[in-house]
Amino acid sequence: MSLQSYLEQQRARIDQELQRLAPPETEIPAVVHRAMRYSLFAGGKRIRSIFCLEAAGLVSPEPGPDIETISCSLELVHTYSLIHDDLPALDNDDFRRGKLTCHKEFGKDNKAFGEAIAILAGDALLTLAFQVLANLPRTPPAVKAALVAELARAAGTVNGMIGGQVADLEAVNGPLSPETLEYIHRSKTGALFCASVRLGAIGAQADAEQLAAITCFGENAGLAFQIVDDILDVESSTESLGKTAGKDAVQKKVTYPALYGLERSKQMAAGYIGQAKAALDPFGPRATRLKELADYLVSRKA
Amino acid sequence: MSLQSYLEQQRARIDQELQRLAPPETEIPAVVHRAMRYSLFAGGKRIRSIFCLEAAGLVSPEPGPDIETISCSLELVHTYSLIHDDLPALDNDDFRRGKLTCHKEFGKDNKAFGEAIAILAGDALLTLAFQVLANLPRTPPAVKAALVAELARAAGTVNGMIGGQVADLEAVNGPLSPETLEYIHRSKTGALFCASVRLGAIGAQADAEQLAAITCFGENAGLAFQIVDDILDVESSTESLGKTAGKDAVQKKVTYPALYGLERSKQMAAGYIGQAKAALDPFGPRATRLKELADYLVSRKA
Repeated sequence: MSLQSYLEQQRARIDQELQRLAPPETEIPAVVHRAMRYSLFAGGKRIRSIFCLEAAGLVSPEPGPDIETISCSLELVHTYSLIHDDLPALDNDDFRRGKLTCHKEFGKDNKAFGEAIAILAGDALLTLAFQVLANLPRTPPAVKAALVAELARAAGTVNGMIGGQVADLEAVNGPLSPETLEYIHRSKTGALFCASVRLGAIGAQADAEQLAAITCFGENAGLAFQIVDDILDVESSTESLGKTAGKDAVQKKVTYPALYGLERSKQMAAGYIGQAKAALDPFGPRATRLKELADYLVSRKA
Repeated sequence: MSLQSYLEQQRARIDQELQRLAPPETEIPAVVHRAMRYSLFAGGKRIRSIFCLEAAGLVSPEPGPDIETISCSLELVHTYSLIHDDLPALDNDDFRRGKLTCHKEFGKDNKAFGEAIAILAGDALLTLAFQVLANLPRTPPAVKAALVAELARAAGTVNGMIGGQVADLEAVNGPLSPETLEYIHRSKTGALFCASVRLGAIGAQADAEQLAAITCFGENAGLAFQIVDDILDVESSTESLGKTAGKDAVQKKVTYPALYGLERSKQMAAGYIGQAKAALDPFGPRATRLKELADYLVSRKA
């Protein structure tokens, strides 16, 4: 199967499971469920879930019946973070993936969801992620607790997603050091990306050695993923990106191209992907698909 | 020991544990940890934790070494909900417990935390609550998973705290029905209050019968708790309340006094407390303290 067909197939599989997990729009109070679903099904590529499933498959050919649900917890957290990041008080973005952001979108009654509902919809998606993991029906309790702990750590303030987001806000207009830049990227995007493959590995009950290799893969691939995001913001058009291109420079965000230039940034991304792939060598040819996915991360155009 | 001394003693015990659980202000990025701690230690009475500890004590004289940590997860969620509720897009409150709200408070650098940091500090406290439960060091994994599931359900959209908050926003200026009012109160405040005693019971490994009795107590006491909040908003001064009094009427919030008048509301609160206490009768004299706490809920002045 071509990589493109494989990505499409996996994405459909994850979307189906997310449809099952998200409360229906008819559930009271409807407006928050509409807002949650609006952002959850706004065209995400499900990269994190796909890496999660692939890492699980690397550990075990039968990674357990709950693995799709586990992978969806990452999309719930990712979507919450996008909704909150797009708010006027944060990045103040009106568009995401070519569609209005949650607080800008108009509901059924022709009234925008607005900031209040967007804040609460984000809160609800974060809460749902942990609820889904804690209620996994066919996973041993110790694994469920480990999954919740891992996701919370990656989403939190200490070397986690919120920490990276705060450091990013703080760094705007400030002096730009390589250490700060790496801290931000490792935390803001890297932590949840790394958690994606770690959740897959933990869900498939990896041993310590397997988990260490997959963590090394995740850390390096996550950093490359964010560097490529920075590069795309410079090189792409708003149309192909689905969000406002060139915004990082306008907002004086700390980025790899701003500190190292485009060429050096591309080399760095390729270097991190090389390290990521090397970490999977102990798995032999079984890791081919995951290595291919890593290459896709740096070659993508949006 | 007098009830007042007991409440003070329990509050100090919970504050000490919260001090241990919250990341230190020196941890990077400092500003979000300062904001989290600012709101976490802004003078909360720790009602939810105290009810949690007491429910646990009712189930077992030795409810397990992690019970204080479990009780603190409720304060983390409660504080997150206050920070987000106070935001300009929601209730737009400048004061809470007589202090500036998180987004209004000035940090060390004489710069207000602002909305962005307040949103992220709230997100972080919610995330931390689940992290703390998933990492309980001396609790069986099945209990940890049950605690996470219970807290997430109570904090969520379906008959949970966020659901109540959204329904409350939606109801402003709309027609006021007894069913809507009860849904809002049961969800917005009642669900987390009921989860307080349920987390205590689950943490102490209650059997099904004990859990059912404690749930009945929690549902009724939680509803009374919110009715008394509504009454205090009408009857108290801003000074004694520590937040803007009379605001519900100005904001046209749906409240018990607005629908039923003050006297009938007081009778209803007393009725619910009576039902709550009756639910504890199977526990005999061991439930005296928890019944006393229930009476305190309706007699309090702030």
